[in-house]
Amino acid sequence: MPVITLTTDFGLRDGFVGVLKGVILGIAPNARIVDISHAIAPQDIRGGAFVLWRAFPYFPKNSIHLYVVDPGVGTQRRPLASRVGDHYFVGPDNGLLTPILEDAGHPPGPVEFFNLDKPEFWLTNVSNTFHGRDLFAPVAAHLCNGVSLNALGTRVTDPVRLELPRPEKTSHGWRAHIVWIDTFGNLMTDLPAAAVSSRPAARFRICGREIIGLVNSYGSAPAGDLVALVDSQGFIEVAQVNGAAAERLGASVGDLVEVILSE
Amino acid sequence: MPVITLTTDFGLRDGFVGVLKGVILGIAPNARIVDISHAIAPQDIRGGAFVLWRAFPYFPKNSIHLYVVDPGVGTQRRPLASRVGDHYFVGPDNGLLTPILEDAGHPPGPVEFFNLDKPEFWLTNVSNTFHGRDLFAPVAAHLCNGVSLNALGTRVTDPVRLELPRPEKTSHGWRAHIVWIDTFGNLMTDLPAAAVSSRPAARFRICGREIIGLVNSYGSAPAGDLVALVDSQGFIEVAQVNGAAAERLGASVGDLVEVILSE
Amino acid sequence: MPVITLTTDFGLRDGFVGVLKGVILGIAPNARIVDISHAIAPQDIRGGAFVLWRAFPYFPKNSIHLYVVDPGVGTQRRPLASRVGDHYFVGPDNGLLTPILEDAGHPPGPVEFFNLDKPEFWLTNVSNTFHGRDLFAPVAAHLCNGVSLNALGTRVTDPVRLELPRPEKTSHGWRAHIVWIDTFGNLMTDLPAAAVSSRPAARFRICGREIIGLVNSYGSAPAGDLVALVDSQGFIEVAQVNGAAAERLGASVGDLVEVILSE
Repeated sequence: MPVITLTTDFGLRDGFVGVLKGVILGIAPNARIVDISHAIAPQDIRGGAFVLWRAFPYFPKNSIHLYVVDPGVGTQRRPLASRVGDHYFVGPDNGLLTPILEDAGHPPGPVEFFNLDKPEFWLTNVSNTFHGRDLFAPVAAHLCNGVSLNALGTRVTDPVRLELPRPEKTSHGWRAHIVWIDTFGNLMTDLPAAAVSSRPAARFRICGREIIGLVNSYGSAPAGDLVALVDSQGFIEVAQVNGAAAERLGASVGDLVEVILSE
Repeated sequence: MPVITLTTDFGLRDGFVGVLKGVILGIAPNARIVDISHAIAPQDIRGGAFVLWRAFPYFPKNSIHLYVVDPGVGTQRRPLASRVGDHYFVGPDNGLLTPILEDAGHPPGPVEFFNLDKPEFWLTNVSNTFHGRDLFAPVAAHLCNGVSLNALGTRVTDPVRLELPRPEKTSHGWRAHIVWIDTFGNLMTDLPAAAVSSRPAARFRICGREIIGLVNSYGSAPAGDLVALVDSQGFIEVAQVNGAAAERLGASVGDLVEVILSE
Repeated sequence: MPVITLTTDFGLRDGFVGVLKGVILGIAPNARIVDISHAIAPQDIRGGAFVLWRAFPYFPKNSIHLYVVDPGVGTQRRPLASRVGDHYFVGPDNGLLTPILEDAGHPPGPVEFFNLDKPEFWLTNVSNTFHGRDLFAPVAAHLCNGVSLNALGTRVTDPVRLELPRPEKTSHGWRAHIVWIDTFGNLMTDLPAAAVSSRPAARFRICGREIIGLVNSYGSAPAGDLVALVDSQGFIEVAQVNGAAAERLGASVGDLVEVILSE
């Protein structure tokens, strides 16, 4: 029985996540359901995109990833089921899959999209404000039961894409961006470590501070030091040892990181 | 194997919820356990009542709903197992089931209550401060294993009931109440949409503001607009598009919403 | 199939916990995974030690407890799998198991430690910053699948131990410590109730206040009263009825509680 993962901006207080699981288990009683995050900021499609993109490859093949960050619920935005390589995705057509689709080309993998237009796979009554419960959870459960994407909707080829910032090459090195700040206050950037790995003396300018060189891990420098290092998925990260770099620097998602590679 | 749901005010920090699950799995190793909410405010029986009432119908028949908001733990308050239609409930006799019981009459369904007075279904040592762990979780697990309500306790007919506010008819329309504020800052009221649905020009007065008419969904008005709409369970809700109405209006649970239906 | 529990300082926002579960289910598809806490304060090994020590005995025999509070990730600190009686533990060698090991001697139970030095049981690529994902979760999953501790690593006998505060006997009674503050703001101490249980008129001095005697439970005194009572695991606790003693008293973990037993 495939795993169904959940990524939403629902929070854990109101019971909305429990309701998704109740609906899923009513249709697919043996589904394995795993929470990825329910603390995406309200309506933050980019945040959801980042978290799901980082997490999904660690799940087994044929996992079904349900994502509901859905400011357009009840409007004309399409409900979508997608296949990207060995993984399935169910959620609103709002661009949240953009980083996953951009990676899917390297190496090229099969990618398919289906507009969910078959109400027989939804709850009987569909509200205008909670498609996670009424439409996406039932579809994910039916997919888990073995219903094919073709049966659940009509093939489309034009999913919404987000314009995401990318690191830019400069005369001195790179201009990168903070793309996520984690629970520890570590600043995750969009710059692949490969871009600096041959330059051990690279300098990182961020929020008026400069950090020289990369350390191996958090414990490689004294508590309180600001450090740059390679994160667990191969991107440059800025951290404060045993502290919160975000608070220390007043850093926010979107802030620039200037990387100086020249002497 | 039935689903066991959990609704508590335990929070997720101290390990108390994990302990409930450990106890359940020790007795019913194949139980499917689903969290509804552990972020009910401490001792907030009414909040727990609202969240469980909204969530439980979306779980499969024969689900067992464990609820522990229990300021009276260790006193004479009774521990209770209840059956309401196709669902089971286990928790303190403190009125938390009131809205579920009030709905149970429409249409009338079988309702039974049992005072849990059979210690052979509890942990060996019962503390005075954690009956969730020592009594309610074991009872829910035995119920999951197929033990009957009759075996777990003695039938009673007088569960505690809360006095809940209800919308009042006025000369102009309705006086409703905010009954819950969700993670998004949306204001959920106790007024069924049917009370206003034939009056598209209904006006909603709340915290000194007036909202005219109902929109279809959040995305039907520009970001930042205050709107009224029908929530996902058929009640009137006040929201700010892509924002938090509660913060914008300074609204709290219990605040009045005056609904003007006349011309 | 054994239960795998999770205790970390990862929070629930970033998807890190979901990733641990994805990795586990990829190796042990039928594992039962239960969260104990992911809200341990960042790098707070003592906090993690307290929470896991309190929770683990309520899980079935042969449960596998994965703990990741790991400021030393990527340094020379050893990765460890341990057996303590009927329970297994997997995580960094940082002293987090200290209270569990101290209890393991009463009565004496089998205790074994293994340095995890067999990369064939890890993910193929091991980062320097996320051994929870790359090393500990895979090892816990293999253990769940029946691989022996001996196969996973090399026996060692010198795990890191924390120096934990202990209650001290004084001329008047005891000097105890606040060791945890729970979600309700209750103050948990390190003083076993047996030390005062024969003295109903014991007095408890904390943050400049004095509490006389023990009550039976929270509901045994009027709302707002400060009370001392026996907590659910047999230690002295200070609470405010239907309130938060920590906030009321400005109390912190580590604060002293003077217990006066004499007349």
